[in-house]
Amino acid sequence: MLPRGRPRALGAAALLLLLLLLFGFFLFREDLECERRERGRSGAFPCVLTPRIPLDGRPRGAAALDGDPQVDHRGHNHSDCVPPRPLPPRCELLHVAIVCAGHKSSRDVITLVKSMLFYRKNPLHLHLVTDAVARNILETLFHTWMVPAVRVSFYDADELKPQVSWIPNKHYSGLYGLMKLVLPGALPPDLARVVVLDTDVTFASDIAELWALFAHFSGVILLRLDRLRRAGWEQMWKLTATQELLSLPATSLADQDIFNAVIKGHPGLVQPLPCVWNVQLSDHTLAERCYLEAADIKVIHWNSPKKLRVKNKHVEFFRTLHLTFLEYDGNLLRRELFGCPSPLPPEAEQLQRALAQLDEEDACLAFRQQQLLVHRVHITFLPHEPPPPRPHDVTLVAQLSMDRLQVLEALCRHWPGPMSLALYLTDAEAQQFLRFVEASAVLSARRDVAYHVVYREGPLYPINQIRNVALAQALTPYVFLSDIDFLPAHSLYDYLRASIEQLQLGGGRKAALVVPAFETLHYHFSFPSSKAELLALLDTGSLYTFRYHEWPRGHAPTDYARWREAQAPYRVQWAADYEPYVVVPRDCPRYDPRFVGFGWNKVAHIVELDAQDYELLVLPEAFAIHLPHTPSPDISRFRSSTAYRDCLQALKEEFHQDLSRRYGAAALKYLTALRQP
Amino acid sequence: MLPRGRPRALGAAALLLLLLLLFGFFLFREDLECERRERGRSGAFPCVLTPRIPLDGRPRGAAALDGDPQVDHRGHNHSDCVPPRPLPPRCELLHVAIVCAGHKSSRDVITLVKSMLFYRKNPLHLHLVTDAVARNILETLFHTWMVPAVRVSFYDADELKPQVSWIPNKHYSGLYGLMKLVLPGALPPDLARVVVLDTDVTFASDIAELWALFAHFSGVILLRLDRLRRAGWEQMWKLTATQELLSLPATSLADQDIFNAVIKGHPGLVQPLPCVWNVQLSDHTLAERCYLEAADIKVIHWNSPKKLRVKNKHVEFFRTLHLTFLEYDGNLLRRELFGCPSPLPPEAEQLQRALAQLDEEDACLAFRQQQLLVHRVHITFLPHEPPPPRPHDVTLVAQLSMDRLQVLEALCRHWPGPMSLALYLTDAEAQQFLRFVEASAVLSARRDVAYHVVYREGPLYPINQIRNVALAQALTPYVFLSDIDFLPAHSLYDYLRASIEQLQLGGGRKAALVVPAFETLHYHFSFPSSKAELLALLDTGSLYTFRYHEWPRGHAPTDYARWREAQAPYRVQWAADYEPYVVVPRDCPRYDPRFVGFGWNKVAHIVELDAQDYELLVLPEAFAIHLPHTPSPDISRFRSSTAYRDCLQALKEEFHQDLSRRYGAAALKYLTALRQP
Repeated sequence: MLPRGRPRALGAAALLLLLLLLFGFFLFREDLECERRERGRSGAFPCVLTPRIPLDGRPRGAAALDGDPQVDHRGHNHSDCVPPRPLPPRCELLHVAIVCAGHKSSRDVITLVKSMLFYRKNPLHLHLVTDAVARNILETLFHTWMVPAVRVSFYDADELKPQVSWIPNKHYSGLYGLMKLVLPGALPPDLARVVVLDTDVTFASDIAELWALFAHFSGVILLRLDRLRRAGWEQMWKLTATQELLSLPATSLADQDIFNAVIKGHPGLVQPLPCVWNVQLSDHTLAERCYLEAADIKVIHWNSPKKLRVKNKHVEFFRTLHLTFLEYDGNLLRRELFGCPSPLPPEAEQLQRALAQLDEEDACLAFRQQQLLVHRVHITFLPHEPPPPRPHDVTLVAQLSMDRLQVLEALCRHWPGPMSLALYLTDAEAQQFLRFVEASAVLSARRDVAYHVVYREGPLYPINQIRNVALAQALTPYVFLSDIDFLPAHSLYDYLRASIEQLQLGGGRKAALVVPAFETLHYHFSFPSSKAELLALLDTGSLYTFRYHEWPRGHAPTDYARWREAQAPYRVQWAADYEPYVVVPRDCPRYDPRFVGFGWNKVAHIVELDAQDYELLVLPEAFAIHLPHTPSPDISRFRSSTAYRDCLQALKEEFHQDLSRRYGAAALKYLTALRQP
Repeated sequence: MLPRGRPRALGAAALLLLLLLLFGFFLFREDLECERRERGRSGAFPCVLTPRIPLDGRPRGAAALDGDPQVDHRGHNHSDCVPPRPLPPRCELLHVAIVCAGHKSSRDVITLVKSMLFYRKNPLHLHLVTDAVARNILETLFHTWMVPAVRVSFYDADELKPQVSWIPNKHYSGLYGLMKLVLPGALPPDLARVVVLDTDVTFASDIAELWALFAHFSGVILLRLDRLRRAGWEQMWKLTATQELLSLPATSLADQDIFNAVIKGHPGLVQPLPCVWNVQLSDHTLAERCYLEAADIKVIHWNSPKKLRVKNKHVEFFRTLHLTFLEYDGNLLRRELFGCPSPLPPEAEQLQRALAQLDEEDACLAFRQQQLLVHRVHITFLPHEPPPPRPHDVTLVAQLSMDRLQVLEALCRHWPGPMSLALYLTDAEAQQFLRFVEASAVLSARRDVAYHVVYREGPLYPINQIRNVALAQALTPYVFLSDIDFLPAHSLYDYLRASIEQLQLGGGRKAALVVPAFETLHYHFSFPSSKAELLALLDTGSLYTFRYHEWPRGHAPTDYARWREAQAPYRVQWAADYEPYVVVPRDCPRYDPRFVGFGWNKVAHIVELDAQDYELLVLPEAFAIHLPHTPSPDISRFRSSTAYRDCLQALKEEFHQDLSRRYGAAALKYLTALRQP
């Protein structure tokens, strides 16, 4: 029932052709390194579900045999490959390996992991073979996700490349698919069993049921283990691949092709999985034979290149299962695992203690809780190329939420340089954001804008935590700390770099360059192309200095009268409530995360800069103009609620106490300023 | 890890004390009416989980025995009451009964139903015992939800009241709790088995596993059936209740008290359920004995009056399960049921056919799909009292989405009369909206504002479908068709009612009263208290006539120059693109749902009014002022996309073809007007 727009969200993954495979990795290593290990226990049954597929590049699995359709359904139609009811021993650690490279696969893998976590009842150990991009993303994500009873290990895909790069391959991603061939060697030698998953599968059941198949087949498999050992897996697949290459005019060979070829030559290696463990979606309908009987689908595999847009009369059913986890609030998966000892990650432990120590009767409890929350962070949610190293380069740093997406195109037109933008979104909104960018030619064209998703949690807007994520991810030596509603002068990016060079900021001069701020009340207005034009608009009342009517203190120290005439940068002094937009070195102080919601979040940062002796230098040709927008929920609450204002006052005072502690007598002037009306 | 604000979302349900009960209803009826029915098959085992609880009004279940903690876990710790592994026969229809009254319980029941649908693999028949409010809400919801393989029957709670109202009861909701006692008589006599659920439970497993317990115990239960029959349930509970009332100084007696007392007297009636089927949450921790062993929780029962705010070291775990379904996109549960014949509701069938007939290559496919979608509708999401019948009363009708919540308080201050507002939200946003209203004294105080949630689906904003929901739910004879960004003059509500009376609209005069529209560009401005003040602001340029700069055609026919001087209502003529805000009888034409997204949605409605010979009368003292806001995503797309504008053009032309079909030559003038530049 959903129009086309939504399914596009999935994008097009590198077509990984390997389906669910269950490997007895211990086996593969055993004859090489681990002769001494006990043999009776470890089972192995390579179990490949797709048969040999032609190498013509058509969607794989189209005419695939989906295993045995005679699957278990509540006691009916039992077949030989029915998973046994007894699940793995309680609290057994289950191992899962996934090969993941690039931005798109990193997003996919999160959906897969969410579906797995939703149903799992065992501790899990994820073995992630990643490139540098995926590792950067996933390390940050799992670190901030803090899911109990989940361990994550990373393996460097680049190190494995030489082992498979001799195989001709069309796509960059194909190379990563081939890495599944060398997993036995890449994973720890004492790892006996692992479930290997593609990134484009969705669980609809507990992975423990899949894991249980190891035990079920162990008797049968041990025999095969011996056969495999005699054959030698590594030699086997390499030989097969070489032979395939000889006999075929193919320009590429995918991992699945090699698996299929090995299996063809050694059918005894294979034990088919029940089809419910690999319901493949394609334009063809053979999979129906499986699931129409089953009513008990366990894993869905989006192995058509069309992904969610696949033509299949039941696709709506599968789509809903996939979207469930695509849009699922990952915070809800931080739940503990009952019945098994599952120590929390140290940060989570610490956080719980801190939360427990809060005074339940404190009128500002919501503020204090919000400050303590650790938000899940997905850095570089979309493809991003880091800027080349340049000594005076500047990244525009800002944060936003859904209601500001529409300024992004204009911002991209005004700022041709790198940006680091943090977005405060729910999991579902992150998918909307993805579609928004994909639908915009302007946004899709930019690779120097990094979008970092900070997942929403709690009732107050953690503005400074979000800003700090954007700031931490800026990769140039300088940052322009802006707000999302400001459009910079078209010349600003070039002008700032020239100013940084001229003022010799790199030479150890500690300065914050002030970009004067203006505002318009009109949604449609023609942006001034020069300072002269801006001044003309100011004189006709079409523009104002920023917050001229509501909060002149915030920018008064910039001294707009002086700026009108200025030909060179000039120094200004800090004053109470000053909150200019500034350019500073990337290693500047972070924003104080205690300021959540509306008020004082930038002011405190400027205090911090002043306390650390940053010169405040106003740039004579720089400007940015604030566009009108609906007031944020937090500013509305600030205006309407005394309690909210009282809490902000309490936060300010605590901030000043901390300042005194850190800067001593030098911080006295801030406290004095605060006490003045 | 979540601050306090969120758990509040649940609110406080009427404290229903009955836990999961499994009844053999066939039994109860059998000796009365159905002697001829086969006896061997139907099993019954009333199974009450909480023991006798003191009648002191403290949270029940605090010190409850949660059944047998020695529950099944993957083959460990088996006890006698372990559910048998074989599930009910495939495709067996499972019956569920729920008593539900009022707005709050209606919301709760939806979360329960979502959790049940998520895990279920059988067709379901819901038996809902409701008051008029809940029935109105749930009938609309299930009708628009269109979930395959779910049947819903309603039973009138008011009819059952006399059977239980003799029992002294503190709360209105307590009476509804007591209705569980008379369910055997209220449900159809041929209904043999039913699972009775409280509204405040969340499933974490397939209800079929619970249903299977009927079969498991059937052998045992049949014996008990005989005993029960001999005893006679109806007499039994009534006698017990009467005795309890004699022996206790209690001012009220809850259903659970009576069940407990009956059980105490007749212990043979009871078969405990495994504790995992009723994990009760309270400040006490006895339930831990169950679930720490289990790791396999099947049903969570929020039976503490504190609900999600309960103090319990594992509450975070349970909260996540609950929030999962509270915020779950109900559209995803429209998925079909594989393996069982599950005919779609006729509307869903028709919709699927219509969607399938669309041309995949049509550039306007997204528009056509969006028009066809049937959105789930939750009417009166919050408590609402219908306005008393008054012949000239007017309801303000408007629609909004999350980004406009902040105007609601101002709107309430400007319009003291009834409102019917439709909100286009996701399930998660609906919960945010609930918290927003609860946090606002202004909004919480109003019972004459009806909020109807239309659940989001599809990429375009179905503005006219949403408006039609708000319009259909208006309960006064007249409606003011406004937009959410307009603040009406403070006097408008009274003035409109007086004008309706004066103009004798009730007497069959077919007219649309025009409320002239103005706009301000300032977020802060002082609202004019009279027409004179408004004109003064207009003269100083602080206000404009609406869309004066961007789209003067939209309101030019209102003739603002004439309005300045007018002392009496004056008639104006329709002209192309006219889109005034009007007051019309409630039975006016609906908005044309084909207009989705930005453009022509109101214009088409005014054309329709003109085609049906509504007089357009401008009211001389009426006005409303548009507040500034960030442009909507759809207006941005309209501005930036040629394809979008082309599709709107196509929609317009189809609209005119339909007009010609319906109004013949009279519609020619609209087409002529359209063709003019």
